[in-house]
Amino acid sequence: MRYVVGIDIGGTNLVVGTVAEDGSEILGLVSEPTLAERGADAVLERIAKLVRTSIAAARGKEIAGVGIGAPGPLDTARGVVLLTPNLGWTNFPLRDRLSGALGLPGTLDNDANCAIFGEWWRGAARGSNHVVGLTIGTGIGGGIVLDGEIYHGASDIAGELGHMTIDSTGRRCKCGNYGCLEAYASGPAIAARAVEGIEAGAETSLPAYVQDDLSKITAQVIYEASHDGDAYAREVVHDTAKVLGAGVANIINIFNPQVVVICGGVTLAGDQLFVPLRSEVKRRAFKPASAACRIVPGELTGTAGVYGAAAVFMRRTWGSP
Amino acid sequence: MRYVVGIDIGGTNLVVGTVAEDGSEILGLVSEPTLAERGADAVLERIAKLVRTSIAAARGKEIAGVGIGAPGPLDTARGVVLLTPNLGWTNFPLRDRLSGALGLPGTLDNDANCAIFGEWWRGAARGSNHVVGLTIGTGIGGGIVLDGEIYHGASDIAGELGHMTIDSTGRRCKCGNYGCLEAYASGPAIAARAVEGIEAGAETSLPAYVQDDLSKITAQVIYEASHDGDAYAREVVHDTAKVLGAGVANIINIFNPQVVVICGGVTLAGDQLFVPLRSEVKRRAFKPASAACRIVPGELTGTAGVYGAAAVFMRRTWGSP
Repeated sequence: MRYVVGIDIGGTNLVVGTVAEDGSEILGLVSEPTLAERGADAVLERIAKLVRTSIAAARGKEIAGVGIGAPGPLDTARGVVLLTPNLGWTNFPLRDRLSGALGLPGTLDNDANCAIFGEWWRGAARGSNHVVGLTIGTGIGGGIVLDGEIYHGASDIAGELGHMTIDSTGRRCKCGNYGCLEAYASGPAIAARAVEGIEAGAETSLPAYVQDDLSKITAQVIYEASHDGDAYAREVVHDTAKVLGAGVANIINIFNPQVVVICGGVTLAGDQLFVPLRSEVKRRAFKPASAACRIVPGELTGTAGVYGAAAVFMRRTWGSP
Repeated sequence: MRYVVGIDIGGTNLVVGTVAEDGSEILGLVSEPTLAERGADAVLERIAKLVRTSIAAARGKEIAGVGIGAPGPLDTARGVVLLTPNLGWTNFPLRDRLSGALGLPGTLDNDANCAIFGEWWRGAARGSNHVVGLTIGTGIGGGIVLDGEIYHGASDIAGELGHMTIDSTGRRCKCGNYGCLEAYASGPAIAARAVEGIEAGAETSLPAYVQDDLSKITAQVIYEASHDGDAYAREVVHDTAKVLGAGVANIINIFNPQVVVICGGVTLAGDQLFVPLRSEVKRRAFKPASAACRIVPGELTGTAGVYGAAAVFMRRTWGSP
């Protein structure tokens, strides 16, 4: 059995694990803060150290290479990060630099693509041909797996599902556009919507969760208050479900997939999110298309990107999974 | 050289032509009103008659089969029209009925898929790998060609791009959803928006084009008034461009295609539509994705669906184009 190291480079955390060729196990799973502000070379060194730690923990397994997932836009063929605002990298030859440092061959793909490919390989979308997914965190990424292949488009930029306009005259998004899904349903956008409501006088126990410092309200705090029964927090979650429902209905009308998988912190909201989300999709999407599609939370919490990055290496090197 | 009869079944018109295997010519192009209200059998007879007329006009060419394009949803593998509100057909075995009547093998695919496949093969998107298109008429259809293949999704429903929500609380669409692209930018929706403005007091010469019978205002009348310099008609076209721009920007962010091709009557508006449309897309879409993509009107006016339906037959039977 061969093993591949999967590397998931996030704006906040690095996650690395050594993945068996058949996906049956992940060894030496390690994580550290990215500390992007220390510069690309320092991040690269920290990644290389994590990879060595993971390989050591895998104890003598045959390591075939490394699969890297990173925020884009990327040039996947050349292994270059073209630009990542979160990491501050421009035209950075990430794959070859890391390959060189480790003495192992590597591949590079987009982080959201990797997460959804991971869920397709070993997670919530296992066994389905056409899978579209959202990764909801600081931003909203998207991954598209068609006929079991990651779809990259003409220049590796396909799948920017978070920047789908669902309200063309709506909230301003960080990307400069108006009414993007991300402007409503990313973690920070969910928090911002809640704070706006509180500032406008909504009755809620949310301030008590953050010692009255509204700047500390995060999406996670809102899910907690919602689970505790706070009516306003539930309303915020419900509004999030409606907005996501419009986005997921679009995905279903466009792609007619078997599975839409939703990954990230938002899954913590559980049924309070997924029940109204599914009902909004049912209301909006074409019936035969929504009937053909499951809408599920990701299963590989924290490891989808590692599984998927390793799987990309395996696919490009060996032709499977 | 072999020939294939392409059949484009629309809610209003039937178009049939005999297409050369290399796409170099279309012979015996004939058209008739669909007259769907006379029932499926009558429409089938009329189509068979048109096919025989077209084959006769092609004078002794070797006819390999018929490619049929029809509104969906369809079951393309079984050649069955599941449901077409415009034609009133339900679970109608169109391919086999027509094949049987003509003594020729046949294939069935969605009409919008065929139109965009036609533009990919012989029209405005020739030579591009990833092409997404809109067919704008009574409704808005979509076709997705990825890696030179029509993308059908899990159950043949993919590509319902007209029912992409761009304003989640916006205009009610015939599909039951709110804020679909089709609810703003189909031919009848463009006319309805113009009439609403006139009824609200807009100053315009449009009523003069229809003898003051506002129910006679069509999108085509609006393009005509716009070309004649009517400021309000220009505003309606401009608003259409902005709405289409939001939809096309979504398509570009999602698919990162080389070409977005826009077919149908709306292309009559010419630069008055396409110039603001392209600028709206530029404002909304990710720069590297919009820079990689041409937005063009279809070139095969009236014949895209015929070319594409024939090409679908050729592809499934001979593996190309």
